[in-house]
Amino acid sequence: MPQTDPKGAVSSTGSAARDGLPDYAAAPQSDSLPDIPAHGGQVRAVMQHFPTAPRPFFDLSTGISPFAYPLAVPEAAAFTRLPEEDEEADLRAAAAQAYGVADAAMVVSGAGSQSLIALLPFVLPAQRVCLLGPTYSGHRLAWQGQGIAVTQVDAPEHLHEAATQPGTVCVVCNPNNPDGREIPAAQLRLLADQCAQHGSLLVVDEAFADFGTQTVAPLLPHPALVVLRSFGKTYGLPGVRLGFLLAEPVLAAQARAVLGSWPVGCVGLAAGRQALRDTAWLSHGRQQAEHAHTRLTTLLRQAGLACFGQASLFTLVTLPQAPALWRHLCQHGIVTRIFPDQPGRLRIGLPGTDDAWRRLEDALRAWRDPQK
Amino acid sequence: MPQTDPKGAVSSTGSAARDGLPDYAAAPQSDSLPDIPAHGGQVRAVMQHFPTAPRPFFDLSTGISPFAYPLAVPEAAAFTRLPEEDEEADLRAAAAQAYGVADAAMVVSGAGSQSLIALLPFVLPAQRVCLLGPTYSGHRLAWQGQGIAVTQVDAPEHLHEAATQPGTVCVVCNPNNPDGREIPAAQLRLLADQCAQHGSLLVVDEAFADFGTQTVAPLLPHPALVVLRSFGKTYGLPGVRLGFLLAEPVLAAQARAVLGSWPVGCVGLAAGRQALRDTAWLSHGRQQAEHAHTRLTTLLRQAGLACFGQASLFTLVTLPQAPALWRHLCQHGIVTRIFPDQPGRLRIGLPGTDDAWRRLEDALRAWRDPQK
Repeated sequence: MPQTDPKGAVSSTGSAARDGLPDYAAAPQSDSLPDIPAHGGQVRAVMQHFPTAPRPFFDLSTGISPFAYPLAVPEAAAFTRLPEEDEEADLRAAAAQAYGVADAAMVVSGAGSQSLIALLPFVLPAQRVCLLGPTYSGHRLAWQGQGIAVTQVDAPEHLHEAATQPGTVCVVCNPNNPDGREIPAAQLRLLADQCAQHGSLLVVDEAFADFGTQTVAPLLPHPALVVLRSFGKTYGLPGVRLGFLLAEPVLAAQARAVLGSWPVGCVGLAAGRQALRDTAWLSHGRQQAEHAHTRLTTLLRQAGLACFGQASLFTLVTLPQAPALWRHLCQHGIVTRIFPDQPGRLRIGLPGTDDAWRRLEDALRAWRDPQK
Repeated sequence: MPQTDPKGAVSSTGSAARDGLPDYAAAPQSDSLPDIPAHGGQVRAVMQHFPTAPRPFFDLSTGISPFAYPLAVPEAAAFTRLPEEDEEADLRAAAAQAYGVADAAMVVSGAGSQSLIALLPFVLPAQRVCLLGPTYSGHRLAWQGQGIAVTQVDAPEHLHEAATQPGTVCVVCNPNNPDGREIPAAQLRLLADQCAQHGSLLVVDEAFADFGTQTVAPLLPHPALVVLRSFGKTYGLPGVRLGFLLAEPVLAAQARAVLGSWPVGCVGLAAGRQALRDTAWLSHGRQQAEHAHTRLTTLLRQAGLACFGQASLFTLVTLPQAPALWRHLCQHGIVTRIFPDQPGRLRIGLPGTDDAWRRLEDALRAWRDPQK
């Protein structure tokens, strides 16, 4: 594959040195990984290191649907008053209905599911945490940041062992990010029951579950189960900042108290109350995602890239040259997700426009056949 | 003064019983206080108990400026991506400049200052809390909710005593809500220094400081000082949910870690980055508030209501019949703020429109001279 060396170009703009950012483009082109952002979505930060890449950039670095719910943005006047309690109650009711939870008292709404992950160490009594991984780094960081020891296991059976230790919080992303691994709801139910029996807890992060069929939310109220849901990914509106924690009513009330009053602004209230009740759109959004997902995996296969894992909103490919492919795609104006702790893996989100598809097709063609 | 008995009317709508809400309108008309919401701003919840009151209601129950910054609401497309780190960094830079803080590393942005008050028990090491009160109830509730003992003192001198006890977090709202009491910045500086000397901390909630001259934010970095600022009140945009915690860089970094990534959505980022740099508007907003404030206190004095305390965005009146006046104003479609723990006090915010002024004038005339 062709590897231009954009180091000179980057240096000539001086941006990398000026901002103290890592020099992505100049990273060695072997297996070693560049020093990349902790999350997807930092497109501008990444792309300033590829000054010769075509514009606009296409962001395939997240698992956010490119098929956004048609948001009716509130008018300026709507921002001039505080959210009312009945609006927040209605948002929780809409979420309860959407997620199959029997009672809105089990719903906590927050400014994005990431803020609710960060909240967990403050509402769940934990002596230690056991993650099923590799998975979304936000979980590990949230607990370790509060001085709680985190171990990672790679098979669900090991979670069952961990669950027998009182004071353990087991964490499962289902489907998992980035490999899409899914654990059947029936098995998670057994795990939750086991946690309840032994005085441990189970957190199931269902950030990517909306378009699927597996969910444990309807098991609530369960004494040992906490479920997280993301609004921004499914509805393609991460800038709204809206997510939900679902738990038995006493724990949910504690979590609401920790968040304080008015955690969700008027855009989140308006968007959530409307979109979460729009089952016709959800079905449409799912179809759009499925169609794009099929097209993406086909395209990757044609480029010689095997799909190692997937969820509705992303595909994971594995190859030894993942860092080189990541750079190659960046040089073509496409940002994908590479993981510092998982070398050889590249997560690719769904293109949402003809231009994005064309760019990805061209880039993969050039990757497969650098002579043309 | 005329006291109609709206109890029958409320019962006839059935709303109070149906919603399980307190029957405000039927509360005894003596000194005893109705069971009212914990915060101002719950206008619809209050007014459903006054079904014969004129519409629209005017909300004078908060200390939020009625003169809102002209918000350029982002288009729907802006919500389809995650906030970028450079946008968040720029928001913090704008806040640092606006509040006179030397370095944006000392700024934490969050979804409203209430969410940052709720955060304090998780980032500040506290064995006990000493509040200068009576004051905004959110502080007491946040600490008590996490099992930290809270004592209240009524004079700044007692805070100096408390500051000598290691592990104490002293909390001062400056100017105070609801009585507007202001402690000179020089005295707070002494208090902060004393805290640093004794291993205690000082939190200064400057939610109502933007239009004034007293601020301790420029003392940062200070090892024992934490400052809170509110965006929604000054800029009349509480539905945006934006507020700031200011502290020395290590503590600020800890607070940001607890909040997690992307605590502020795209409206808060856009509004804050623009408005916090708009010093011409701030000056204009201050003048509007001052003018309205003068008009309000004149009007209240004409109605025989003495101004007991004030800040730029509200006035506090004291009278034994405060609950009766609160109900009287509700019956005229005006919601003010009455405090369950401070009987005999009524906080009145600034009217922002001719209609609101007219309604308040009529209501106060009827209060002063019920025969007409």
